[in-house]
Parts: sequence; structure tokens; C-alpha cells
Amino acid sequence: MSTATFNKKHKTDLEIAQSAKLRHIREVAGSVGISEDQLEMYGNYKAKLPLHLIDEAKVAKSHLVLVTAMTPTPAGEGKTTTSIGLTEGLNKIGKQTTVVLREPSLGPVFGMKGGAAGGGYSQVVPMEDINLHFTGDFAAIEKANNLLAALIDNNIQNPKNNLGIDPRTVEWKRVMDMNDRALRNIVTGLGGKPGGMMRETGFNITAASEIMAILCLAKDIEDLKEKIGNIYVGDTYDGKAVFARDLNAQGAMAVLLKDAIKPNLVQTLEGNPAIIHGGPFANIAQGTNSVIATKMGMSLTEYVVTEAGFGADLGAEKFLNIKCGYSGLSPKAVVLVATIRALKYHGGQPLQELTIPDTVSLAKGLANLEKHIENIRIYGLPAVVSINKFVSDTNEEVAIIEKRCKELGVSVAICEGWEFGGEGTTKLASQVVEAVEGFDGKYKPVYDWNWSVKEKIEAVARKIYGARDVEFLPKAKQNLRKIERIGLNDKPICIAKTQNSFSDDPKWLGKPENFTLTVREIEIASGAGFSIPVTGNMLRMPGLPALPAAEGMDIDNAGRITGLS
Amino acid sequence: MSTATFNKKHKTDLEIAQSAKLRHIREVAGSVGISEDQLEMYGNYKAKLPLHLIDEAKVAKSHLVLVTAMTPTPAGEGKTTTSIGLTEGLNKIGKQTTVVLREPSLGPVFGMKGGAAGGGYSQVVPMEDINLHFTGDFAAIEKANNLLAALIDNNIQNPKNNLGIDPRTVEWKRVMDMNDRALRNIVTGLGGKPGGMMRETGFNITAASEIMAILCLAKDIEDLKEKIGNIYVGDTYDGKAVFARDLNAQGAMAVLLKDAIKPNLVQTLEGNPAIIHGGPFANIAQGTNSVIATKMGMSLTEYVVTEAGFGADLGAEKFLNIKCGYSGLSPKAVVLVATIRALKYHGGQPLQELTIPDTVSLAKGLANLEKHIENIRIYGLPAVVSINKFVSDTNEEVAIIEKRCKELGVSVAICEGWEFGGEGTTKLASQVVEAVEGFDGKYKPVYDWNWSVKEKIEAVARKIYGARDVEFLPKAKQNLRKIERIGLNDKPICIAKTQNSFSDDPKWLGKPENFTLTVREIEIASGAGFSIPVTGNMLRMPGLPALPAAEGMDIDNAGRITGLS
Repeated sequence: MSTATFNKKHKTDLEIAQSAKLRHIREVAGSVGISEDQLEMYGNYKAKLPLHLIDEAKVAKSHLVLVTAMTPTPAGEGKTTTSIGLTEGLNKIGKQTTVVLREPSLGPVFGMKGGAAGGGYSQVVPMEDINLHFTGDFAAIEKANNLLAALIDNNIQNPKNNLGIDPRTVEWKRVMDMNDRALRNIVTGLGGKPGGMMRETGFNITAASEIMAILCLAKDIEDLKEKIGNIYVGDTYDGKAVFARDLNAQGAMAVLLKDAIKPNLVQTLEGNPAIIHGGPFANIAQGTNSVIATKMGMSLTEYVVTEAGFGADLGAEKFLNIKCGYSGLSPKAVVLVATIRALKYHGGQPLQELTIPDTVSLAKGLANLEKHIENIRIYGLPAVVSINKFVSDTNEEVAIIEKRCKELGVSVAICEGWEFGGEGTTKLASQVVEAVEGFDGKYKPVYDWNWSVKEKIEAVARKIYGARDVEFLPKAKQNLRKIERIGLNDKPICIAKTQNSFSDDPKWLGKPENFTLTVREIEIASGAGFSIPVTGNMLRMPGLPALPAAEGMDIDNAGRITGLS
Repeated sequence: MSTATFNKKHKTDLEIAQSAKLRHIREVAGSVGISEDQLEMYGNYKAKLPLHLIDEAKVAKSHLVLVTAMTPTPAGEGKTTTSIGLTEGLNKIGKQTTVVLREPSLGPVFGMKGGAAGGGYSQVVPMEDINLHFTGDFAAIEKANNLLAALIDNNIQNPKNNLGIDPRTVEWKRVMDMNDRALRNIVTGLGGKPGGMMRETGFNITAASEIMAILCLAKDIEDLKEKIGNIYVGDTYDGKAVFARDLNAQGAMAVLLKDAIKPNLVQTLEGNPAIIHGGPFANIAQGTNSVIATKMGMSLTEYVVTEAGFGADLGAEKFLNIKCGYSGLSPKAVVLVATIRALKYHGGQPLQELTIPDTVSLAKGLANLEKHIENIRIYGLPAVVSINKFVSDTNEEVAIIEKRCKELGVSVAICEGWEFGGEGTTKLASQVVEAVEGFDGKYKPVYDWNWSVKEKIEAVARKIYGARDVEFLPKAKQNLRKIERIGLNDKPICIAKTQNSFSDDPKWLGKPENFTLTVREIEIASGAGFSIPVTGNMLRMPGLPALPAAEGMDIDNAGRITGLS
């Protein structure tokens, strides 16, 4: 394998993806029993699947594996790569498996982080399409979101068909799938009467849209319409809450989403089925793919591997308390991705020196991983630690983690999917199968939906984040009253918090203790069916870096793309 | 045919389209010699075509027919319906024909005007898809446009990688495919330093984006990149012009447009090939589909029918002086769509009474049609007047137009494509064939590109609009100097003017004379390769009406849409 390895080292993710020989999507579909006439093809390698293929009896029998991670470094620790690699490994050891992922956002693709289609020899393909417009779902979500915004401003503008909306109370923002900080805070409606009523507003990135959250929780078109109708828009001058249904917006918005609601079938580099659908971020939204996509995967194969964004304190918490709560799903095992570099980072080693061996920082950083393991046990689920192996990792460093995991009685495996694809993940796959087969229960939620919003926030903060106290700033207290008024008190919460720390301070690495979590405000997502306590200094529209990735991209007349990562 | 007619009267355009039996797109492609492996399918009824199918030798032999119109009423006079109906008729009389159209914009779909896929029994299908996201071209254009905006603001924000762009000079606007007046004039970059540099800007509708204009004039990806690189962005503090290439934006923007540049194949209700690609408006942009789409159609069939937006003073003028000038194409016949209602409207009958017979207003309104006929003759092209027949038209009214056309020596036919499809257009088709076969020349441009921009504007204003004078306001005079500085003086002009009148006053119907055309300002589209003299009070972002069409739309779990028109 050494020659192959040598060659691999000279290839970028894009080059690996471009040199792959893809199966026609009708073959991939055929391998899981879907006939060609049920596919809506987008070219030869992408297809939308009809919702009627979801079979609840099969969903009940399929094994769901959730991939989550320790608190990541800014570069990310490879959850998507691990999810894809594990899927290849499971198929290799005879367990038919589908990987179910989120769609990448264009913002980071042109910014700094790059795409989100895995890496090395654990990728989903066609990589360029998945990382760019894919099948147009994000564009459709953006359009539906912005149609509601146009209808709101048009209603305020027009004296004949007016609900009496007070422009100062409108909370619905427009969205754009772009890292564009200049749109965070804007004033619209300038230019006198023909230009509308002047007001302060802003754009969020599309992944943060409530429409994205709704699409990922909806069962079907009717359910989608009902949820959209429930979106809170603002108040009338009389203080009455106005919802999207009062603007008759839900029908046209659902029309715009008629294709976006259908999950997308693609393939892994080894030709196994991959479903990619929906893309909410995990720091500011529920951070996991759609219920429809997960159930679709579970209707097709014995195993489904899925991921939830950022660390387990964010993605996994929301996956379990929101997505599983609403859908009745439960994972049978949780894979916790760890890297040597992240452990050293949490143990105090500077970001620029993470490739230098350092067993002292590593041992110190283990506290972060241990707290995540403890949390998975709070949910009552079996955990498997997966070490995402990097070329710079030493055997000594790996041994330290393995030893600690053994002391804690938690299963651990090295994942070499990035370098070797499924060949590098069969051991991890076997341990996951063992965990799944040894578990016959269901996750235990961290809070009861019937508790007050305040109690629910405190439960997550104390049990999962390890906070001592929660402070509610005046605006948050005011929001709590509005939540009560709108009837959102008995719904789950979706905390917006930095992905860089258990606490709300992105600089506090490792395992923070004795801290106070500060809730600045609580946003209302009555359509999606949760409230969003915003902690610390979270932003819902990113900016571009000093040197945007966009500047290095190119395409020639043959359609060959370079510079995409 | 009377029973059929009776049933038809009870069907909406959407119901007719939904009840049509569609051919699989591979069959439509096969009928013009395209094999399945050359198609990039989007479901079973839409496909993208690869650019290598364009064959210049075939383009040179194919007959191009341009459909344009007299000055329309606000409802439109049926150019798209006539183009599609004529295509059915030509195929019926044995001339293999492709119709090449523009893609509809979502703004009007949710506003007042509705979609743009034809009407009655002259439609292109699948109508819902064509009118909604289609194959994602508009979304891609929007994203490429807005990526450039984000890169500009990011460059201004970032002191390390800064071109010294003066924010007060930035002319590049963001776009959204939505009727949203509140976005016309906005202030971005609020919220202090992290939110960017505050500046005044706005959104245009996507159809007005220079990226749309560029895509519709580009030959291939390399040409697209060069044109994008040439986009003028603003000036540095030293007064030096900054272009998109200075921001290294063209590669990433072209990557976003990799699929959008490929034309889309669909079908007419009678199963004939239809290519739909690009969608610039004709009042504020060049108003016709892409050069790539037109050449693709001409590579496939003996005849191609295409349309240019609004009246012949706008769409046809730009089609000939810009699109034909850049591409070397020339139509062999021009179909001039007229309606009894529009003639009466231009003769003074009020909008609400256009279904009431009125031969006096009709005779008066003929002056408008006659000026358009005169203009087609200025271009040296044979004209065929097509009367788009409505149920309320009387035989007496029709006879008046026919008589006048005979006196003028211009060919005339009644088009009943809306009611009967191809059966209702064979006579029009025969006359078009006669005109084409009797013409062996090329159009004569109205101006020479080497003239100054001022001279070119005056030529169009005097010869085509019938103006006596042209007045340049101070800002326009200033813009003339900038055009000189940027080197855009020897390029064509793309006048933005109301579609409701030959003059720049939308209320001046009929055939205005002895008027002065006022040029308010002249925008620079150095990427597309033209300047945009803006006359009167033109807006590049529409608003929604008091009762938006969106409020009447719905979709059920079976995916059945209602309320789309």
C-alpha cells in the first residue's frame, strides 16, 4: 500500500474526487432496491427520492449510528470524513449501510472552512456539485424565506391590505447563503414612500433560516405548510402576534419548497449510498440533516450513519432533545470523533504547533473528551471513541488515548478512512456493530418538554455544559414572557452557543468548570417549534476572511474546476 | 372542434399544462439527433445540453425568426404564446423548428404578471418547474452577482488585502429574484467595525444583473470569465477604476455558473423541442435569451423561433444592435405581434373597456403598429404582422387591421395558437416561411458601434422612438466622461426605457411625436460590453402589488400546485 499512499499524498480532496470512477445513480439506487422510475435524476450522479419510499416499519428495524465529536479546533475534527469512512467500513464487513449527511453551505466554501463533503478517501461525490448549488435546496429555502420578508414589507407598505404590523417589531430577517458581514445589520426602505417603510433589519446566512429548521423537521408537504404558517413575524400596533399564516404565505412558500423537501441521493467514493439533505448549523440551529432524510436512509438499509454538527454539546444535544424528540428516532450507538491535535489544543498547545508531538498537553486535553463521554452516558447511549488519524500523530500519543478510554471502559478505535477509505475503518465498524448489538434501549432526554424554558436551559447548561449557573439578561427575561404569550413554553430549546468551548466563551478550552452561562436573548422559532436562547456573542451571518478561498478558484472550458476544497 | 373549445374555456393555463401528456426528454432530444448520453437530465422532462453540440456550420444554414410586438398593454400581448404557437405550426407544415425562449423571473410569478411559459394551448412544459426554480440558473446568477458584492465589501473591510476602493464610488449592487421594493435603497454595514463599512447601496432584481447580461452574451466558460473580469466595480480613492479581475473574482464566479451556462431543453405542449435559457428584462437589459441558446437551437433544427421582450422599440432593437452585433446572427423574418385590445388601448380606449368593440379607437391606435412596421423596415427585414386572437375580438375589428396591413404591403395572419395550438397557426407559419424564403440578406444596424455613445443614443431615439431631441442631464454628461475613461465608447448601448410608450413617458400612448428623450444617467456594464442610458423614471427592482399572486398559491401532499399562472 506504500506506493498508493505516496501518490495519495500528492492529491487534494478535489483531485481524488475528480479521479474517482462514479457509478450511475440508477445503479446506486438499484443496490438498495429503488427502481429507476422512482428517481428524479439531476444529471447522472444525483437524484431526488420520492417521500413515499419512507417505510416506518423498516425505520423501526434499522440501526441508527450518530457521529459526533469532542470540542473541535477551528479546522474541524473530521466528523463528516469519519461518517463516510465508517459507512464504507460497515459495508465492507457485510452491513448494508447508508450515510445520511447535511448539505454544505456556500458561505464557508468561498470563505475559509471550505466544503463539507468529507476528505481524502472518505468523500461523497460528485464533490463539486455537492459543495456548490447541488440540487438547489438552499436556493429554494432562501427564496421561501425571502418571499415571506417581501410579503411582510409589502403588507406594511400597502394601506388596502394591511394587518397593522408595527415595523419596529418585525423579527423576520432575510437570508443569503454567503459570508457577507455587511448584510448583518442594514436599514431597508430608503428612498421615500415608493421605497417602503424604513426599518432596521438584517440578513442571516441561509443555514440559520427558520425555513431550514422547519424543512429538517417536517414530515411532508402538509406538515411543512402548517409549520410555515406558525412562523412568528412580529406584532401589530395593538400588540397582537402576527404569524405567516395571517399573510397567507404558507402555500406559496411550500410551492417554492416542493422539490427541496425531497432528499438527495448520491454516493460515497466506494459507491455506497449517501443521502444528503438539509443543512442547519449546529451552533445557531439544530445542526443535523432532515428527519425525512434520516428516515429515508433507514427505509433503505440495515444501518444508517449520520452526523450532527460541531461538538457533542451542540449537535448531539440538539439531535437527541429536538430531532429525536420530534421524530421518535433514537440512535443505538454514538461515535465520538477525537483527534490528537484537538486534544493537545484543549491541553494548551498553541494552534500553530499542533503537529509537534506533545504528550503533556495531550494528557491535559483529555478532560474535554472525558466530559463528552460522560454526557453520552447521561443520554444512556453506548459511546465509541474514534481517533481520526493524522500523518503527524505518533504511536505514543495514540497509546495515551487508548489507555484512558480503556480505564473509562469505553470502546476506542483508530479511524484511517481519510487515508485508506473503507479499508481503514473496518475495526471501527466492528466496534460500532458490537455497541449497536449490545444495546436495546432508547436515549434518555436531558429535559422534559413540559418544564419551563428557563428550567430546560438550566438543565442543558448544568448537565451537558457543566455550568454552575445561568444568568438571564433583561432582554432574555422579556423574551421569556413573549414565549409564554405565544405558547412556545412546552417546546424544546435550541441553544445558540460557541462551538469552541463547553462555556459561552470561545477562548475557554478544555473542560470549563464553575462558570455562569449568560443568555443574552431568546429568539422565537414557533414554526420550527423551538425557542433559541442566544448565549455569549453568537453571530448568525459570518464574514469572509482576509484572503477568501474564492480568490483561488478557477474553471476552464472543459468544466474542470480547481481551488475548491 | 366546438366541444373541445367549450372544455378549454373552463381550464386555466396551469390545468392545461398539468393535464398534458409529456414525452420523456430523451425522446424530445432524440427527435433532433441528441443521444441520451449527451443529456444532463433534471428529472424526466428537463435537461441541460453540452455546449459542444453547437455547430457553427449548422447555425449558418438555420433560419432565425424573431418574434417581437407593438407597444404592449400592461398585461402583455402574447409574444411567448405566439412564439410557441408558431413553432407548433411550423412543425405541422413540415419545417422542423425549435422555440428558444427566456427563463421566467420569480418576482412577477409571485407578484402580478404571473409566469412566462406561454398560455392556453401554446405553452412550454413542465410549466410549474419552468416558472419556479427551473434548473437553478437564476439562483446561480444571483449567487455569482452577490459573491462579487461580498468580495468588494470584504476588501474594503480588510486592511491587509486592500485595493483602496472608495466605498462612496461602488456601483455594484446585490440582486434578488423577488419583487421587493424595500431592498431598492438600503444602507449596509451598520453595527460598528465588525459589521463593515457603512454605505448606501441597494438590490436589483436578478434579471437586471450584469451577470445575467454577460451569461446571455458569452460564448463559453473562458469568454464568460473574461467578461466577468471586465466588470467595473468602482474607483479607488485615487480615482483609478477597479474591475472584478482586480479582486480575483472571475474564477469563483464562473465556478458558480458552470451549469447555468448550459442551455435547458424542454418541450412544447405538442412535444416539439424548446430551449429556455437566460432571462434579462428588455426594458432594463438586453431582453433576449442567450447567444448560446439561440445557436444551440440553430444547430438542431432548420428553423428557430425566438422572442425579444416588450415592444420592438426595446427587445427587437437590442436583439439586433447588441445580440446580433456581438454574435453575428441575423433573423430572416420578424413577426410583429399585435392585438385588437392593444390597438384600441393606443387609440384611447380605457384599460377596463378593452373587451368592448370600438373600431374608432382601433383605427387610431394603428399608428403605433405602423411605426413598429416602419422600424422593422429600417432594419431591412421582412415583417409579418400576427394578430393574437382573443375571444372578444370581432370580425369587423380584425378586418380593419388586415386592410391596413395590405395597404402597407405587409404580410398579416391571425394567430389562434392560444385556443388551438399548432392547428391555429399554420397560416401564420406559411407566411413566415414565405418571408424567410424571400429574404437573403442581413439586418442593417441602426448605428455604427464606432460612433460616440451620444451619437448612438440619438440614432436610436430619432430613428426608432421617433424623438425630436435627446437631453442629457448633468449626471449623464458626467457618466459620458467616465465611459470614455473606461474605454466603453465603441461598444453598443442598451437603453433603459419604459415599455409602455415609444417615449420615456409611460402615459404617452399611440405614436408620440416631437418629444425630447431625457437621459438621466448612463450606467456602465463593461463586463457585458455596453453602457445603459437610463431614461425617464426606470426602476430596476419591482414591488409587489396590493394583493400578491403568492397569497392564492397552494400545494398538497401529492405535489399538486394550484394558483400559479
